Amino acid sequence: MNKNIFYAQSGGVTAVINATAAGVIEASRDHQQQIGTVYAGRNGVLGALTEDLIDTSAESREDIAALKNTPGGAFGSCRFKLGPLDTHREQYRRLIEVFIAHEIGYFFYNGGGDSQDTSHKVALIAEEMNYPLTSIGLPKTVDNDLPFTDTCPGFGSVAKFVATSILEASMDVRSMASNSTQVFIMEVMGRHAGWIAAATGLAGDVPDAPPHIILFPEVAFDEDAFVAKVQQTVARVGYCVIAVSEGTKRADGSYLSAGKKDAFGNVQLGGAAPVLARIVEQRTGLKQHWALPDYLQRAARHIASATDLEQAYALGRAAVTLALDGISGVMPIIRRLQDKPYQWDITTVPLADVANVERELPAHYIRDDGFGITDACRRYLRPLIQGEAPPAFVDDLPQYVTLKNQAIPKRLSV
Amino acid sequence: MNKNIFYAQSGGVTAVINATAAGVIEASRDHQQQIGTVYAGRNGVLGALTEDLIDTSAESREDIAALKNTPGGAFGSCRFKLGPLDTHREQYRRLIEVFIAHEIGYFFYNGGGDSQDTSHKVALIAEEMNYPLTSIGLPKTVDNDLPFTDTCPGFGSVAKFVATSILEASMDVRSMASNSTQVFIMEVMGRHAGWIAAATGLAGDVPDAPPHIILFPEVAFDEDAFVAKVQQTVARVGYCVIAVSEGTKRADGSYLSAGKKDAFGNVQLGGAAPVLARIVEQRTGLKQHWALPDYLQRAARHIASATDLEQAYALGRAAVTLALDGISGVMPIIRRLQDKPYQWDITTVPLADVANVERELPAHYIRDDGFGITDACRRYLRPLIQGEAPPAFVDDLPQYVTLKNQAIPKRLSV
Repeated sequence: MNKNIFYAQSGGVTAVINATAAGVIEASRDHQQQIGTVYAGRNGVLGALTEDLIDTSAESREDIAALKNTPGGAFGSCRFKLGPLDTHREQYRRLIEVFIAHEIGYFFYNGGGDSQDTSHKVALIAEEMNYPLTSIGLPKTVDNDLPFTDTCPGFGSVAKFVATSILEASMDVRSMASNSTQVFIMEVMGRHAGWIAAATGLAGDVPDAPPHIILFPEVAFDEDAFVAKVQQTVARVGYCVIAVSEGTKRADGSYLSAGKKDAFGNVQLGGAAPVLARIVEQRTGLKQHWALPDYLQRAARHIASATDLEQAYALGRAAVTLALDGISGVMPIIRRLQDKPYQWDITTVPLADVANVERELPAHYIRDDGFGITDACRRYLRPLIQGEAPPAFVDDLPQYVTLKNQAIPKRLSV
Repeated sequence: MNKNIFYAQSGGVTAVINATAAGVIEASRDHQQQIGTVYAGRNGVLGALTEDLIDTSAESREDIAALKNTPGGAFGSCRFKLGPLDTHREQYRRLIEVFIAHEIGYFFYNGGGDSQDTSHKVALIAEEMNYPLTSIGLPKTVDNDLPFTDTCPGFGSVAKFVATSILEASMDVRSMASNSTQVFIMEVMGRHAGWIAAATGLAGDVPDAPPHIILFPEVAFDEDAFVAKVQQTVARVGYCVIAVSEGTKRADGSYLSAGKKDAFGNVQLGGAAPVLARIVEQRTGLKQHWALPDYLQRAARHIASATDLEQAYALGRAAVTLALDGISGVMPIIRRLQDKPYQWDITTVPLADVANVERELPAHYIRDDGFGITDACRRYLRPLIQGEAPPAFVDDLPQYVTLKNQAIPKRLSV
């Protein structure tokens, strides 16, 4: 009897995480001699703990192919981190019991740093329990902060969305600047690392092209320097476009977005952008607008990067190949062979090395004045947004699939 | 000597206003026997008052064609309303003097309600001064609030962007809802009319499809009913997606976005969405995210409606045809001939009838519970987002043109 695969999506979802799922499922179907069924955890690893497994064999070939064009997490995701091994052993044992009950021989966990840590722990506990299990971590995060891999699936598509959006909004502001809006601020994701903020810099690579200011989590926010830069830019260029990472902090380590308490003692909800907008308004008198695309950026499948999509899919297939080769305890990663034209292949790193390591934007990717990106950063980023891969449009909107997501019968008493 | 055309862009710009400019310029170039040069006002009508006229004949055929693919206002726009005729006669006389100096025989003003009013007044003053001038208003506004015309160029593209974006974000939230974000709020433009908010409803047309709640300026915000609807939706569907118009008001007429004053006496900047987010958080405890795309929505040329683009361009050409036919004091409009398949043609209305009339979302387009759109609304909206017209991508980002925008020599002493 061929062993089954358990696949789960974890953490914040992306425009292309379902392409990785499609890669896993399609490659498995290509190897029915060796692999049983792909079961997906409903709502991530919670589906394993609650024995709520989705039977992907009930999905048509067309619907699985359509996953490549569908944003979000088709099986549901979760923000749930398994506890430390020494205090939460029962939780991990429960996982293995569910795997035994459903003849799961392969654990594929598709997520960010925490998920890789979980994959590693699951491998350890399976070994301890003498249960033969292939544990493979699949990278995914718009934050692009996993180590070793050239990039993380999901990031390239966000990068393409934010670069396109800030380019378009800049053309709007430029038109209005003579006697209306002169300053535009767009807030992007990236709580700990400035990769997405950096990607907005792809919109312009000549002097005075927008964005004129990028604020990174890696650079302490200096209000006076910021205000001076805004004023100089408007004086010289006529308008000023700013990208700010949600993770931008002041020198004292407090988040710019934390805001101030209002008269009722409540902290204002949300946003580095509105905080900057107020600074601009109060200190310069310039008229401003601000945008906060939030989930729009990571769900924007309609403007996904073809390269990102291809990598997300290829990594899903690679997991199956690794499993068939008997390789466990690794994360397949993208290895860059060449910048231009971009060439890459897939290799692996041990999960033990990946777990809980975050990759910040390196210092040499940030311009000396702290307000922009360097050519080295551009060389790194440029290939990641390469190519378009629009979904089919039906009735003039993108055609996205919703799967049946049928559960298989439970076999355990609790 | 053939008379020249003065063309200017006014008010908030759109993803397709440059297509109207391209229509005017290309049609004029097709009729060089009868028409001189198209001069564009730099920064709208201000360019006429300051005698800052852009010579579009200096632009290549390719660059003019590229305008069809370029968002924003290529010649600059302005938020500037000419005063009443009786108190600001000198301002209007100045306009005519500039027109005389540069042999302008045609005044094409591309904007919203205020601009149509200006076009009308310019026609009156020219007549009074016995200066032969053809004055034509060209419709443009993402707000879709001009009367008579089936739709306003710019609206269909925003509609397509917001419907696509809320569809994509909904797939994201649905994935996360089991133990993370359950409520997502997207704020859209539309200070006085709920057309853009209504367009988000195109994302789903089956029961319980997102968006689950739409808040319109036309419907007084009832906080208790809203909170109850959010809770019911999450209980039944698992998550709740909300679209809110920036113009949504409470029963007392105050804008939801007005916010409360903070400890420093400043009114919080921006947004109905963060106000709703706080209500959701405080009254339901549900985890929420919110987005405010701001200019991203009206500049999103990359996902423009092909129908909107075609209409914007056709109206520009129509203005030239009208001018050649000696017709003045009108606005060319879109007339709907049939819903499905959508058929339309171009006709005209007198500027005197258009000026300062706003078209609200009709009551029968809003569902009885006030939280959604009706089938009649869907029938109206659906054709307006028809078709895709993506720009060319160069270096993996949309290729947008920046014109030379050379001024012609001034001829007046001041």
